[in-house]
Amino acid sequence: MSTTAEAKGTATHPAYKALMDRIQETSLIGSSASILGWDQETMMPSGGVAYRGKQLAILSRLAHEFLTNEATGEALASCESVPDLTSDPLSPEAVNIREIRRSYDRATCLPASLVEEEAALSSSAMHIWAEARKTADFASFKPELAKVVELMKRKAECYGWAEGCEPWDALAEDYEPGCTAADVEAVFTPLRKELQTLLDALMGSSKRPSNAFNEVKVPIEKQKAFVREVASKLGFDFNRGRLDESTHPFCSGSHCNDIRMTTRFHENNVNDALGSTTHETGHGLYEQGLMESHIGTPMGNAVSLGIHESQSRMLENQVSRSESFWKWCYPVMKESLGDSVSSLTFEDVYGGANIVKPDFIRVEADEATYNMHIMIRFELERALMKGDLDVGDLPDAWNTKYREYLGIEVPDDAKGCMQDVHWSMCAMGYFPTYTLGNLYCAQFFEKAMSDMPDLHDQFSKGEFSGLLNWLRSNIHEQGQRYRAADLCEHVTGRPLESAPLVKHLNDKLRPLYGV
Amino acid sequence: MSTTAEAKGTATHPAYKALMDRIQETSLIGSSASILGWDQETMMPSGGVAYRGKQLAILSRLAHEFLTNEATGEALASCESVPDLTSDPLSPEAVNIREIRRSYDRATCLPASLVEEEAALSSSAMHIWAEARKTADFASFKPELAKVVELMKRKAECYGWAEGCEPWDALAEDYEPGCTAADVEAVFTPLRKELQTLLDALMGSSKRPSNAFNEVKVPIEKQKAFVREVASKLGFDFNRGRLDESTHPFCSGSHCNDIRMTTRFHENNVNDALGSTTHETGHGLYEQGLMESHIGTPMGNAVSLGIHESQSRMLENQVSRSESFWKWCYPVMKESLGDSVSSLTFEDVYGGANIVKPDFIRVEADEATYNMHIMIRFELERALMKGDLDVGDLPDAWNTKYREYLGIEVPDDAKGCMQDVHWSMCAMGYFPTYTLGNLYCAQFFEKAMSDMPDLHDQFSKGEFSGLLNWLRSNIHEQGQRYRAADLCEHVTGRPLESAPLVKHLNDKLRPLYGV
Repeated sequence: MSTTAEAKGTATHPAYKALMDRIQETSLIGSSASILGWDQETMMPSGGVAYRGKQLAILSRLAHEFLTNEATGEALASCESVPDLTSDPLSPEAVNIREIRRSYDRATCLPASLVEEEAALSSSAMHIWAEARKTADFASFKPELAKVVELMKRKAECYGWAEGCEPWDALAEDYEPGCTAADVEAVFTPLRKELQTLLDALMGSSKRPSNAFNEVKVPIEKQKAFVREVASKLGFDFNRGRLDESTHPFCSGSHCNDIRMTTRFHENNVNDALGSTTHETGHGLYEQGLMESHIGTPMGNAVSLGIHESQSRMLENQVSRSESFWKWCYPVMKESLGDSVSSLTFEDVYGGANIVKPDFIRVEADEATYNMHIMIRFELERALMKGDLDVGDLPDAWNTKYREYLGIEVPDDAKGCMQDVHWSMCAMGYFPTYTLGNLYCAQFFEKAMSDMPDLHDQFSKGEFSGLLNWLRSNIHEQGQRYRAADLCEHVTGRPLESAPLVKHLNDKLRPLYGV
Repeated sequence: MSTTAEAKGTATHPAYKALMDRIQETSLIGSSASILGWDQETMMPSGGVAYRGKQLAILSRLAHEFLTNEATGEALASCESVPDLTSDPLSPEAVNIREIRRSYDRATCLPASLVEEEAALSSSAMHIWAEARKTADFASFKPELAKVVELMKRKAECYGWAEGCEPWDALAEDYEPGCTAADVEAVFTPLRKELQTLLDALMGSSKRPSNAFNEVKVPIEKQKAFVREVASKLGFDFNRGRLDESTHPFCSGSHCNDIRMTTRFHENNVNDALGSTTHETGHGLYEQGLMESHIGTPMGNAVSLGIHESQSRMLENQVSRSESFWKWCYPVMKESLGDSVSSLTFEDVYGGANIVKPDFIRVEADEATYNMHIMIRFELERALMKGDLDVGDLPDAWNTKYREYLGIEVPDDAKGCMQDVHWSMCAMGYFPTYTLGNLYCAQFFEKAMSDMPDLHDQFSKGEFSGLLNWLRSNIHEQGQRYRAADLCEHVTGRPLESAPLVKHLNDKLRPLYGV
């Protein structure tokens, strides 16, 4: 509770209290569903699929009903009529009212049946996608994806979009409020040019880092202990969270004191397990850093997916792929993994963690080419939503763009348009948040470095709490006080720009490739 | 759907369909809560405790609201007014209507606030119990237990009880419909006399089985693989269930295709891990054997806790502690556990699995003394509910009864009145179902043996499907068609008696003790 709120008694105003009770109950249902979703991906036996879809559907329906109920609308309107509650627009009360209004208005656009349909479809489509991907069988997945696209078009219609906007914008608003396809295109286009220049330079060089780190075989049990140690050192609190395994790593959970991260392991790719883990640890630290006193309300929630991704990318790239990180981690890893890595030099490891190589799989992509994967998905989902691309033509369109942007031939749809879970889970408008995350991340980190010039010295001693404390106070504990673009300006003093990311990639990668 | 129902179209009657929709939605919420409860015991980090209590409370409240809603009452009354739906009292439709009526009438006795209060209290009390038990600190647990007793008295008042009955009966009805404390006393009293005679004979003998099986140290990873193999061989389907670890083993889950069992491991007690696993496997087989076409309705639910326990005890005792089982399992175990058990003879193992020894811990108790543990708990909880015993006097009363019934001195409350989770989870009236289970089990197994005289020959070859198929058709697939007492008569041709259990124990144990 802010001092102002205490003075005015706003936090205990009956209308505000009624609104908070209502929204916290909605969150209790939503977070219960979140644990069931986590269970589905990590623990549930295969027999549970069909019924789990129904469980998630009814919880989704109930959460929707709680949010859109007349009582919520009345409590919201009452709060808005009390000037004390909204006079300071950055007070927790004003922020909560503002963001609940936004959610309420969006949710009341959607009929309960559509919300339930989406939950059921995403459950069945995810299962069919996972099965079909095993044999690169796009034909089996196609009817489900067509249902998703059709449903997402109906959802966009319910939301509506402003003059000059398009269906994709209506959906993206769920992930990155205020962000339009035109905005994304405007920032992606120059980034793509700069990336192309950098990639051409790197790929044209005769010098490149050793790949030895990516070729060692490390027993999975040893990898598990190692990545757990790193996550813990980076600040993840295992008394308030877990790390498990799933096909596609993710971070979810229930609330700041119960955060569920997953990673994945392959015997011959400890670097992938480490990258996945440090990435999810960034998400996990953000979630664990949200304010306990605001659980279940906007002030206790993350800003947007782009800001969320800025945290995961920072831990994955700015921290765990830095030279200073490896100064600490190289001996730790040698101790932890033993014989498997005894032949690797420091240069093998630091270089091997930063190899740039155009390839097929987004989640295995390096820091630089990753953004190309995102641009391709953005362009394709935008076209699917506009009706410019048929679901049946997706594989061809996908493969054409990989040829054009990354100069590679996609061998099959499992390594192509079926590699990601997102579309099967009805998440359209989501992909660009990854690259927006990279952009926010680089700009935040540049500011953190300017506030704490010895940050890399700290990393090289295995000290990560300086950065974590900076992230806690500047970002995590802000909850949804600021929208993404405003938070960026508030923290860094500037609107979002591509320059910090471009500079970061050039500064790190050119020396490793001798260009 | 029964043929009769198809002919009459009763299963698609609008009133019946409305009732089924309503009850299936209630089950979706209840089963979601069940998965969260499982997660709390097996996966959840400690930080999640407080919020999980709130999640369970709201789901419990919602399930209660769905069941007791006016719409359910109206659908029920409509169904009861359609003669075709209830004319055959053993049809799925009639059974579902009968059992939903019973649940509805009981649930409408309870205010939603009490239901929610119980869910929240059991969550917090379980956590405090688990902490307090670590240091045998009854004083810390006492206030929580007092709250439970007070709440259970209020709950019993809401339910009410017939002339000549008592508060305990009102609560026991939740676990064993139709069963009163007087009924329990009437069957426990003769059983106790017979047990006392048997125990005196066994304890007075100079011959007793070797304890070597209970003294070997077996690495826990090996135990895990071994008990999983046994559970699978007994018929548990791991595509439709899981086996995890928890302090107190249990079996829960979501529905017949997603059943969650737990067990526990101690390096120096593989016999305990095996006993816990085979016990929970019995529960798990019952749940997996319920009819998929009746998920979420009484016809797809287990009869009562007593009947449930008859299945767990059968797999634990009649099967996995039999000589024939060990003829198959002895070489399998030697292969699986290797050096740790290489010195054990067949007699060491079969005898060691059947040692009778009065001791403190119920869940570690042998087949014979186990029933004494139950009688003690039954008498104490009955007195707590009647108001004849104060919570503060529980440890003394407990210790006195252990002295009287089992001739042992309880060393501390962790090994005494705090050993079980039940009371902390607001389960009063539950304990007797364990011994009722032993009684039903022995009577069912006697009938199965008379139907399939070569059953033990099958066990000795590692064949358990004969028994499982018998259980499936006679018990599992019956759902709630019969109440417990009726099912017993329907299957065995006789009402429940103590003779089969007494005979089973005498026949097995006397030869092992040479008496």
